Amino acid sequence: MAQQGIILVAKEEVHSFIVRCIVGAGAELSHAECLADNLVLADCRGHTTHGLLRTALYVKDLKHDIAKGSGVPIILKETPAIALVDGNNLLGPVVGRFCMDVAIRKAQETGIGFVTARGSNHFGIAGAYSLQAMKKGFLGISMTNASPALMPTRAKKMFFGTNPISVAAPAVNGDNFVLDMATSAVSLGKVQVCKLKGEDMPDGWGVDKTGQDTTDPSEVLDDGGLHPLGGREITSGYKGYGLAMMVEILCGILSGANYGPNIRHWTSTDQIANVGHCFIAINTSAFESGFEERMTDLIDTCRNLETVEPGETVLIPGDRARAHYEKVEKSGAIEYNAEAIRQLDVLAKELGVPMICTMKQI
Amino acid sequence: MAQQGIILVAKEEVHSFIVRCIVGAGAELSHAECLADNLVLADCRGHTTHGLLRTALYVKDLKHDIAKGSGVPIILKETPAIALVDGNNLLGPVVGRFCMDVAIRKAQETGIGFVTARGSNHFGIAGAYSLQAMKKGFLGISMTNASPALMPTRAKKMFFGTNPISVAAPAVNGDNFVLDMATSAVSLGKVQVCKLKGEDMPDGWGVDKTGQDTTDPSEVLDDGGLHPLGGREITSGYKGYGLAMMVEILCGILSGANYGPNIRHWTSTDQIANVGHCFIAINTSAFESGFEERMTDLIDTCRNLETVEPGETVLIPGDRARAHYEKVEKSGAIEYNAEAIRQLDVLAKELGVPMICTMKQI
Repeated sequence: MAQQGIILVAKEEVHSFIVRCIVGAGAELSHAECLADNLVLADCRGHTTHGLLRTALYVKDLKHDIAKGSGVPIILKETPAIALVDGNNLLGPVVGRFCMDVAIRKAQETGIGFVTARGSNHFGIAGAYSLQAMKKGFLGISMTNASPALMPTRAKKMFFGTNPISVAAPAVNGDNFVLDMATSAVSLGKVQVCKLKGEDMPDGWGVDKTGQDTTDPSEVLDDGGLHPLGGREITSGYKGYGLAMMVEILCGILSGANYGPNIRHWTSTDQIANVGHCFIAINTSAFESGFEERMTDLIDTCRNLETVEPGETVLIPGDRARAHYEKVEKSGAIEYNAEAIRQLDVLAKELGVPMICTMKQI
Repeated sequence: MAQQGIILVAKEEVHSFIVRCIVGAGAELSHAECLADNLVLADCRGHTTHGLLRTALYVKDLKHDIAKGSGVPIILKETPAIALVDGNNLLGPVVGRFCMDVAIRKAQETGIGFVTARGSNHFGIAGAYSLQAMKKGFLGISMTNASPALMPTRAKKMFFGTNPISVAAPAVNGDNFVLDMATSAVSLGKVQVCKLKGEDMPDGWGVDKTGQDTTDPSEVLDDGGLHPLGGREITSGYKGYGLAMMVEILCGILSGANYGPNIRHWTSTDQIANVGHCFIAINTSAFESGFEERMTDLIDTCRNLETVEPGETVLIPGDRARAHYEKVEKSGAIEYNAEAIRQLDVLAKELGVPMICTMKQI
């Protein structure tokens, strides 16, 4: 029997649809393509909360002139190894790609490139930039601050964003390590999924609006917030909170961007986002030779560890996303919720662009 | 009534005792002083598992000629921004201080200094090196790999060390942010404390030798292991595991040191440790001016957040350690367990050096 409510869209059409929406909202083609690359990559890697379905939010920023669809980021200060960039209020992926390119060029020369940016917008999945460096043979790291969602240990107010960290390191034969994680216990997307399924959340994911632990996803979504990685104080949630602050320092404080509670809620359009990012590229050949071979030894040894539960496999960060990516590459199509696609049809009509062309409903 | 079993030792005498033990074990005076600085700092900041009481372990390495007490680290490769260092099998703090000095010099010139080291030994608290950079006005980061203690998500074998990360950032008037955390859920020291008190551990700290969750500290210490930060898979323990692997990559893989399960158990003396570290210094003035003022705004705003439980305070990473440090500075003395001091008397006799001079038993 066909699965209810799932629609397949060709990967190329997902990209094309995002491009025509973003161009329709007033952005330059190259900027729209850059954003589309990021969103399609998110969907291909299984990060469905950061893919096609977010198109409307970027459109909203452009239509409200709260983000710019043309122009170039500006290097404000630099040395052979670092740069401070003003994102010029362009779309986040345009700023991110520019900055990581700068970091890669510097790493090629001096072994490391370290770039912070302010004046940017939501840059999609952090993994897009660490992968950008990795695809050129570098060890890549990217981070960003974000709209408040996380309650510091003991506090009853959202203060930091989910402030993700991504690290990508190449191994031999195209194998790799790709960490792409929020410093909160979980993403808001996982909480939303629990709510949709009518399930309780595990203890340690989030708190209600008074800061009390809760397993009810509705209470988290109703002005509550996420626990930092580690959960409660007794299970070392203060470490996740410390990591979120580390990301804030490297992205927001160092660059002069907005930080902490000064960052607007992402869906609001009453002020520019002015979020901050940080990008690091490391030229592994500037250190001990044989990096990729040692990476392969490390991750293969880890994958082959005996598991607690028979039949399971020890995964390396990125394995699950890579498997999802390969599945999409093989089929050429990405699965979406049918209702979400219908909402995109409304968006297309508003923008006066062709609706998304679906392959079939399964 | 006097507290049973607590002995006070003057801070200077703690330092002096460590120096005479390490010199007695064959190390150069400057190396012994460097190690003593690290161990005393740990005790002053309240990290008692990493202080004076570890002296015997460093002595053991020196006496077995498995670590060297004289010589200098060697810069194998460098650019204006990075360096690869061979620690020359010297005491970890000697290697660490050397490397962070190199990183600071490079950061002064190019905005960032990034140094990895191999051929090193246990370097004490990671915070010593991030603080070393911070005291000179830089943003400091340090990490190290370590003997296996952490079970990767789903695995039933210890694979990574507690692989700590420390980040120190200056604010105005001597205030600061100092994160110094293991990427495991907790340190082994906390598990040992639970066992001594005859208490169960919270769920999510560790597993028994079959990889099953346990709240019995004895089962963790008896060939069991620590959960990564985040605990079980359902509460995102795979993120802590990913962070531990990130540290392993930056310390062990990049430098060509031992890594993962290849690192000896710290108390064994059948092979050299060859652990790897990573040190980063960032010259904040190379980025947007006013870094320290923004840091103060960030951390003061955070400290002043309303708390869930009345009467509590939201802490910034490092606040607890700083309070402990100030208490020691004021009294001039550090508290130790009386039985642990008696063991140091045995060590002193073995080395033929004067026993530690205690102030009073309280």
